[in-house]
Amino acid sequence: MNDQLRHVRIQRGWLDHAEGSVLVEFGGTRVLCAASVQDSVPRWRRDSGLGWLTAEYAMLPRATNTRNDRESVRGKLGGRTQEISRLIGRSLRACVDFKAFAGSTVTIDCDVLQADGGTRTAAITGAYVALADAVTWMRDRKMTKGDPLISSVCAVSVGVVGGEPRLDLCYEEDVVAGTDMNVVCTGDGRLIEVQGTAEGAPFSREELNALLDLAQLGCTDLTMMQKEALAR
Amino acid sequence: MNDQLRHVRIQRGWLDHAEGSVLVEFGGTRVLCAASVQDSVPRWRRDSGLGWLTAEYAMLPRATNTRNDRESVRGKLGGRTQEISRLIGRSLRACVDFKAFAGSTVTIDCDVLQADGGTRTAAITGAYVALADAVTWMRDRKMTKGDPLISSVCAVSVGVVGGEPRLDLCYEEDVVAGTDMNVVCTGDGRLIEVQGTAEGAPFSREELNALLDLAQLGCTDLTMMQKEALAR
Amino acid sequence: MNDQLRHVRIQRGWLDHAEGSVLVEFGGTRVLCAASVQDSVPRWRRDSGLGWLTAEYAMLPRATNTRNDRESVRGKLGGRTQEISRLIGRSLRACVDFKAFAGSTVTIDCDVLQADGGTRTAAITGAYVALADAVTWMRDRKMTKGDPLISSVCAVSVGVVGGEPRLDLCYEEDVVAGTDMNVVCTGDGRLIEVQGTAEGAPFSREELNALLDLAQLGCTDLTMMQKEALAR
Amino acid sequence: MNDQLRHVRIQRGWLDHAEGSVLVEFGGTRVLCAASVQDSVPRWRRDSGLGWLTAEYAMLPRATNTRNDRESVRGKLGGRTQEISRLIGRSLRACVDFKAFAGSTVTIDCDVLQADGGTRTAAITGAYVALADAVTWMRDRKMTKGDPLISSVCAVSVGVVGGEPRLDLCYEEDVVAGTDMNVVCTGDGRLIEVQGTAEGAPFSREELNALLDLAQLGCTDLTMMQKEALAR
Amino acid sequence: MNDQLRHVRIQRGWLDHAEGSVLVEFGGTRVLCAASVQDSVPRWRRDSGLGWLTAEYAMLPRATNTRNDRESVRGKLGGRTQEISRLIGRSLRACVDFKAFAGSTVTIDCDVLQADGGTRTAAITGAYVALADAVTWMRDRKMTKGDPLISSVCAVSVGVVGGEPRLDLCYEEDVVAGTDMNVVCTGDGRLIEVQGTAEGAPFSREELNALLDLAQLGCTDLTMMQKEALAR
Amino acid sequence: MNDQLRHVRIQRGWLDHAEGSVLVEFGGTRVLCAASVQDSVPRWRRDSGLGWLTAEYAMLPRATNTRNDRESVRGKLGGRTQEISRLIGRSLRACVDFKAFAGSTVTIDCDVLQADGGTRTAAITGAYVALADAVTWMRDRKMTKGDPLISSVCAVSVGVVGGEPRLDLCYEEDVVAGTDMNVVCTGDGRLIEVQGTAEGAPFSREELNALLDLAQLGCTDLTMMQKEALAR
Repeated sequence: MNDQLRHVRIQRGWLDHAEGSVLVEFGGTRVLCAASVQDSVPRWRRDSGLGWLTAEYAMLPRATNTRNDRESVRGKLGGRTQEISRLIGRSLRACVDFKAFAGSTVTIDCDVLQADGGTRTAAITGAYVALADAVTWMRDRKMTKGDPLISSVCAVSVGVVGGEPRLDLCYEEDVVAGTDMNVVCTGDGRLIEVQGTAEGAPFSREELNALLDLAQLGCTDLTMMQKEALAR
Repeated sequence: MNDQLRHVRIQRGWLDHAEGSVLVEFGGTRVLCAASVQDSVPRWRRDSGLGWLTAEYAMLPRATNTRNDRESVRGKLGGRTQEISRLIGRSLRACVDFKAFAGSTVTIDCDVLQADGGTRTAAITGAYVALADAVTWMRDRKMTKGDPLISSVCAVSVGVVGGEPRLDLCYEEDVVAGTDMNVVCTGDGRLIEVQGTAEGAPFSREELNALLDLAQLGCTDLTMMQKEALAR
Repeated sequence: MNDQLRHVRIQRGWLDHAEGSVLVEFGGTRVLCAASVQDSVPRWRRDSGLGWLTAEYAMLPRATNTRNDRESVRGKLGGRTQEISRLIGRSLRACVDFKAFAGSTVTIDCDVLQADGGTRTAAITGAYVALADAVTWMRDRKMTKGDPLISSVCAVSVGVVGGEPRLDLCYEEDVVAGTDMNVVCTGDGRLIEVQGTAEGAPFSREELNALLDLAQLGCTDLTMMQKEALAR
Repeated sequence: MNDQLRHVRIQRGWLDHAEGSVLVEFGGTRVLCAASVQDSVPRWRRDSGLGWLTAEYAMLPRATNTRNDRESVRGKLGGRTQEISRLIGRSLRACVDFKAFAGSTVTIDCDVLQADGGTRTAAITGAYVALADAVTWMRDRKMTKGDPLISSVCAVSVGVVGGEPRLDLCYEEDVVAGTDMNVVCTGDGRLIEVQGTAEGAPFSREELNALLDLAQLGCTDLTMMQKEALAR
Repeated sequence: MNDQLRHVRIQRGWLDHAEGSVLVEFGGTRVLCAASVQDSVPRWRRDSGLGWLTAEYAMLPRATNTRNDRESVRGKLGGRTQEISRLIGRSLRACVDFKAFAGSTVTIDCDVLQADGGTRTAAITGAYVALADAVTWMRDRKMTKGDPLISSVCAVSVGVVGGEPRLDLCYEEDVVAGTDMNVVCTGDGRLIEVQGTAEGAPFSREELNALLDLAQLGCTDLTMMQKEALAR
Repeated sequence: MNDQLRHVRIQRGWLDHAEGSVLVEFGGTRVLCAASVQDSVPRWRRDSGLGWLTAEYAMLPRATNTRNDRESVRGKLGGRTQEISRLIGRSLRACVDFKAFAGSTVTIDCDVLQADGGTRTAAITGAYVALADAVTWMRDRKMTKGDPLISSVCAVSVGVVGGEPRLDLCYEEDVVAGTDMNVVCTGDGRLIEVQGTAEGAPFSREELNALLDLAQLGCTDLTMMQKEALAR
């Protein structure tokens, strides 16, 4: 079943304090997404009449098969961590109207409790739902003006495993995948981010197209699950 | 009910990969404890015929009422974080026979997912259970010789609230507590660590004694809960 | 002329000491690429019968319109710097046969002397030529066995400016571009890395395809220029 | 003589510039305590009508038997250093009325010139005297309103050596001590901080009590010595 | 020819964005000097009615025979780097009238692209020319009042090689030099900085004098070359 | 008395543990110098048949008129600190025969307890005496072969105050000095290091000569005091 998502679960309100929070699972991958609202914007954003959104991604040391050192102990952020934090922030900012929550900052924390492939795409998918709850929280407090959410956002990984395009790879598949791609989509199927990497041999336009088809299909499903979760 | 623990819940096996893992809850406080076994010891411990155990404590940025900056982003560990990591390590090392798992290191990670007072005592209590599971894992693989666990360990906080000694303070109580104490006990009621601090006025020996009585009572309950959890 | 590269110039041998070195210019963008050969591999790579290649990207403080603080002074690498360093390394590793230079490491340093858009794609394009010279240097010293270079590698940026797909954006165009994409290709036109980002509105598959067509065209030209430079 | 302090010496005015300074010796342990007055408070303390007090503890590299690396060279503070800095600050803040020196900050630096056990307790004992001199300095300049010092503060270590409770352990005794305790008292014998740790076997309430008795006795002596030093 | 400078080349305007920029070559040593003007001064300089000038020196990783690790990657500045940055700043500040560009800061970046001895003296010599261009830039924008440049500044290294004083040492000579000296002069031959170091045997006043004679001669030549470069 | 040293005092054996230790005072400047012997050399020095010597300089936060932040707390070494550490190490290495203590490293720690001008020159002068004691310690343990000390080393500062050359400046004089010079000499009057800096107006060769004369005179006195201290 190369075109099926793993079991996806989106639990809202997992934290008592956060303005929005979601525990999202894609198979064995489990990410805790917290959206925090702050009543100010960074210095460079002041007097712009706009809000701001930023994201941070991290992994618990024993999220993986073997323990990784803590970045806080090492005293520096790894390149992978920063790269994914930037991707999550960029993806969510693409679906947001900053004029609608001028003067506020939403910070999205995505902490991987357990990793089994696709942590960044699970993080984006869960983060959007946490963000939606934080937006509701702001709306209830009259902190918004118009709708801060232009569209929904979700993401999925795709790859070529054993010569076949496959959706939503687990860790074991990811390791052997020939080409690896992460795709971020809006709820109506347009593209926000496409990151494809040849692991091993370079890939052709045809392969790229097959992978994108699969990813957009997966995102259609994820969009529906996000809607259901938000409707509960 | 000043002499009652909050609702305590100890879920074993919360992670798929870790050799031992526990999600422990003391009221609204929720700590994920993972015990990782490594087949080597630090350089300074080599050729000692002994194993080693170390612990790290951290808090997710939105575990608390308002978001805290990540220590990995700031590039340095705070004093509080290091102090609690050291306390957890010291407490568990007091219950361990290092000769029984020569050549192996157990690393205990205690990550606070949500904080509502008593995170360090919940962490120690949960960490012992995760450690016990990791010890079983090692025993199954013939990595032990004799029993690595001399006794069980648990911990609880006590404080003076409104002039009255109180057990297992939540965050709100902790903030107003006159004296604040953390007590780490063995399963048979002896003391491993006593840390009492005057918050506000200094305290007398009588107050100290009343708090210790309460803490030892609480630890008796926690020891039983640890046993039950390990029996499941 | 949306489908034209800016003026491209590839000067080999710009440094006296490096085993391979190139000053590459894409319009006003000027990147100094140095390939250094080291007679050892990282610890984790030992006894693998394989060589290694790694890359580092950085920008001089006054490469840009206004001066940026030095990362060495701030004491930490920015996320963007690490992200690009990783991209360059990954791209070059995709064209290399590690069995052919077992036991050696090539380090590619790409230092942006002046930035006017497309610094990462210029860096990759120049770095390949510096790498090719370093490979020749190794071959002359009998450090290789077979051909270390599987194919050539180059890269170009594309974007949508004023509704039109455009090749090799300068800084001013990059700032206003609706969608921004970096494409890394082999000499025979296959894809190594595709990174497309919606800046502003999400994009469709059609836009993606138009941009990819343009990028592959640009890469055909760059491949020829690399060949000419290496033939001189 | 298990219940005797080592030779204690408190020299005031050891530095020309500091508002208060003390070289304190407990046997071979020698700590330079400097109290610095600053005419402002940290940002979070502004407009509170309160002063502030903070402390920093450090050890010279060759204070100990073998040389330790400098924390400034390693680029990070060790956990032990931060833990003791926090303890000293907390202990002194417990004896201070912040309303009496609104708008000023006192910083206490405790630098261990030579270490032979009990550096933190010597530091607290000396720091109080340096603080008292700094308070006099402030009073002379009309920077106080009422008395900033609620009580005096001193501290001593106790431990079980060879089965016997012993006061004010030197390094050699500290290393073999079964239980290790640091006790901070006010001048009238109440407790500010109690930190007891099982080194080796856990301890009983009886042992705890014997150690506390001894510590309170030692603090009575130290209080007298502080008074004498301040009277000179 | 012990009393001859190596081939010196001063190219102005090497960068498009910087207010002043120079690529300076002393033999195989090649340093890119950029002067950046900023419309503000550091906090401690505010309301002083004075401008400020600061300098930073760095070396590209492959400027030297074998590759050096990046200081940005290591996360700290080396002592040599800071020492030279301080020397350059101090030397240029000695020739500047801060009252003449009140409220502005000039930052001089000296990045060594290739190192073959005398990088710091080449840097100072080139930096002065870049500074002169930045001053012209400021004057054209009415940011000055009076002449910010009191005198010109240049620098040269001298050393004892094979028992003979020699001017402007290349790397190979520098390595074997018995005494090593860097001299910074004004255009009219007075001294701004003299740094002489015994490498091997201590040196006498006579040797010192011979070296200073040589250095002042070299500086006369460099002053003329600076003038010519600025006249072009 | 422009040609007189301030009151100089050299106390040996100030620390119990260090192989050599000196508390040196130049007027109000007080530096604790500790020489530590280690039975190994840095990795790059192994198998060279040579010993090694290194030095570290630091200042206590309240050594100065107003308190300075700790470099350990800031997490990085300042440029001045590193510059002086390098100067001390270089100066002492110039008087040492590394063949005579092959395989050992001497680390010199110079910690400024109180600063009143000339801290680096006092440090060098005291460090030599501590080194001499450490050499004796090594000789007693048969760790040397031949004499590790080629000559003695001392240092002094000189400057132009009120138009007059002056020896051994205190802080107040240093601040107003027109030219500032630090001179390191051997016991027989030869030069190891000369560092002269124009503070304010550039200086002439005549001024330089007058300052050097004065410095060499001061060093003659210091050499005698070192001898006397070592004879006690």
